[in-house]
Amino acid sequence: MKSRSFARAAQQVSAVDRVAESAAEERQLRLTKPAGSLGDLELIGNRLASISGRCPPQIPRQAVVCLFAADHGVVASGVTPWPQSVTAAMVENIALGGAGINAIADTVGAEILLVDIGVVGDLSSLDAVHHAKVSDGTKNLAVEAAMSASDATAALDVGVGVADAAIDGGADLVVTGEMGIGNTTASAALIAALAPASPREVTGRGSGIDDDHYVRKADIVAAAVDRCRGFSPEQVLAEVGGLEIAALAGLIVGAASRRVPVLVDGVICCAALLVAERLVPGVVDYCFAGHRAVEPGAHVVHEELSLRPVLDLNLRLGEGSGACLAVPVVQCAAAALGEMATFDEAGIG
Amino acid sequence: MKSRSFARAAQQVSAVDRVAESAAEERQLRLTKPAGSLGDLELIGNRLASISGRCPPQIPRQAVVCLFAADHGVVASGVTPWPQSVTAAMVENIALGGAGINAIADTVGAEILLVDIGVVGDLSSLDAVHHAKVSDGTKNLAVEAAMSASDATAALDVGVGVADAAIDGGADLVVTGEMGIGNTTASAALIAALAPASPREVTGRGSGIDDDHYVRKADIVAAAVDRCRGFSPEQVLAEVGGLEIAALAGLIVGAASRRVPVLVDGVICCAALLVAERLVPGVVDYCFAGHRAVEPGAHVVHEELSLRPVLDLNLRLGEGSGACLAVPVVQCAAAALGEMATFDEAGIG
Repeated sequence: MKSRSFARAAQQVSAVDRVAESAAEERQLRLTKPAGSLGDLELIGNRLASISGRCPPQIPRQAVVCLFAADHGVVASGVTPWPQSVTAAMVENIALGGAGINAIADTVGAEILLVDIGVVGDLSSLDAVHHAKVSDGTKNLAVEAAMSASDATAALDVGVGVADAAIDGGADLVVTGEMGIGNTTASAALIAALAPASPREVTGRGSGIDDDHYVRKADIVAAAVDRCRGFSPEQVLAEVGGLEIAALAGLIVGAASRRVPVLVDGVICCAALLVAERLVPGVVDYCFAGHRAVEPGAHVVHEELSLRPVLDLNLRLGEGSGACLAVPVVQCAAAALGEMATFDEAGIG
Repeated sequence: MKSRSFARAAQQVSAVDRVAESAAEERQLRLTKPAGSLGDLELIGNRLASISGRCPPQIPRQAVVCLFAADHGVVASGVTPWPQSVTAAMVENIALGGAGINAIADTVGAEILLVDIGVVGDLSSLDAVHHAKVSDGTKNLAVEAAMSASDATAALDVGVGVADAAIDGGADLVVTGEMGIGNTTASAALIAALAPASPREVTGRGSGIDDDHYVRKADIVAAAVDRCRGFSPEQVLAEVGGLEIAALAGLIVGAASRRVPVLVDGVICCAALLVAERLVPGVVDYCFAGHRAVEPGAHVVHEELSLRPVLDLNLRLGEGSGACLAVPVVQCAAAALGEMATFDEAGIG
């Protein structure tokens, strides 16, 4: 795959189309419903118009969950009770169709594009996995930089390549997903450094950790963020980020550069979105927040980037599950805007 | 159609299956995810198990929006700026596929069963309409009883018959929908009388009325509720209800009696659910609140019946739109519970 670099994709991001958005806002008023009665569905539809530059926008028919998996050196510092081997085991589970994201994607008609961007262990026997390993996990962000600058760039490039592969394969709605034991720690550090926000405010319980793990995690996040003072967004990403998070940032920029909407999942994907927005201001306009995740860092990103989550289901699974659940709502928003009769057409009013 | 009466269906409602629910709760803990990480999806899945008496429950594959339309005499008292003729015009719009519910139902794969239970005007030329008119709308609840006891009973019976027709036709998830200019006034009166709650607390802006209409509406609701003191739920329904609301109550009881889950839409459908629950305690256990509607009366019913809405999209369209949008979430909840691998199966933990 001869793919675009992240730098090239970043140059190709243009502003969303406010003319198409205005046309959508005006069309909403002519549809056979009380003005504003479809609530958030109207806002979603209008945003789809601004993204595609068309009013009405096409209904997204092929959602693809681009799910990046990687390991995190910080697990050596005891931020989670789950062993690192669970990342590889869950990638196999997803590849074999047994995970939560499989059940949800099958039900809503989404495909899954599963990418090993940095899992510790050999997954080459899994045919369902796209193999793009940059390294065997990150280094421990509690004691050193998580990634080299070149590894971070490589992961950003992979993300753009996956966006291109998905879109070239027919994807018209990109859904972000991830798997990586320890990745809520990296996400908290990224969000605290880039929002910015206080480390305590963004550190959550992840998969459900006890008080001891939580205190350790919060201290590690605070120390890591301290190291990032004065860093550029690129430097922050390498210092405290993750390979799957860098790839997700690349994915978002890649999709935005092709005017394809992105449904962003929970806190890890929100951290990736914040990285993407700091690297390429404006890409957030191509994104929807899939759900109001339990993790506090997700709220911080939603507030910072003025995103209203589509769903609020108390989810904290990851894998892209919450964003994938929101796919039908986005489709319905486009369908309402495009397919409803106007008052004139229906002879009402 | 030789259908069951409401009274017969009411006798056939049994308690949901707490053994199957417990089995579902236990199964959730063995699935390959952090305990509780699917949040509300787990609660929905467990409830589906309790409704069907099976763990895991089957995934609902055929949702049917049972959409009852009727007119309301109270529009003569100026509770809304929309003319009564809009009810018939919107039924025609739905029959021809141009309304919001059509776009949403098509997108999520739901069918629509459209029933004229009391629209003013002759709709007999519309083939897509199931004709079950009990009367040409209700009388004006601001000055007299909205319905006779026999008309209310007839509408309840129609609702049961529609539930049976839908389920016999393959529906395994019933979605409530309605159309009727003026029906938020009847709903507010029903909720205030049956929750009970203060008339001001339950009276909202409906399709978006101005202050003058609002004050008039609130006064009418308060006076109507006053007349209901000491009334039985049946008497309240006839005094201040609506034909489509009575039919929806029958629909809910009919579906519950056949252990088929019901997705309840906004405030009008919530009023119908409250009527159904007062007439047949326990039917609420077969129901899901589709969405957190804008209308305040919906919140009162959710609180009173301990229902957590699936969606929160600031909707106030009606037609069943919010509940229909929640169909994929309910399907995903069942799919996750039934299709995810356990830790043992995946060799994790």
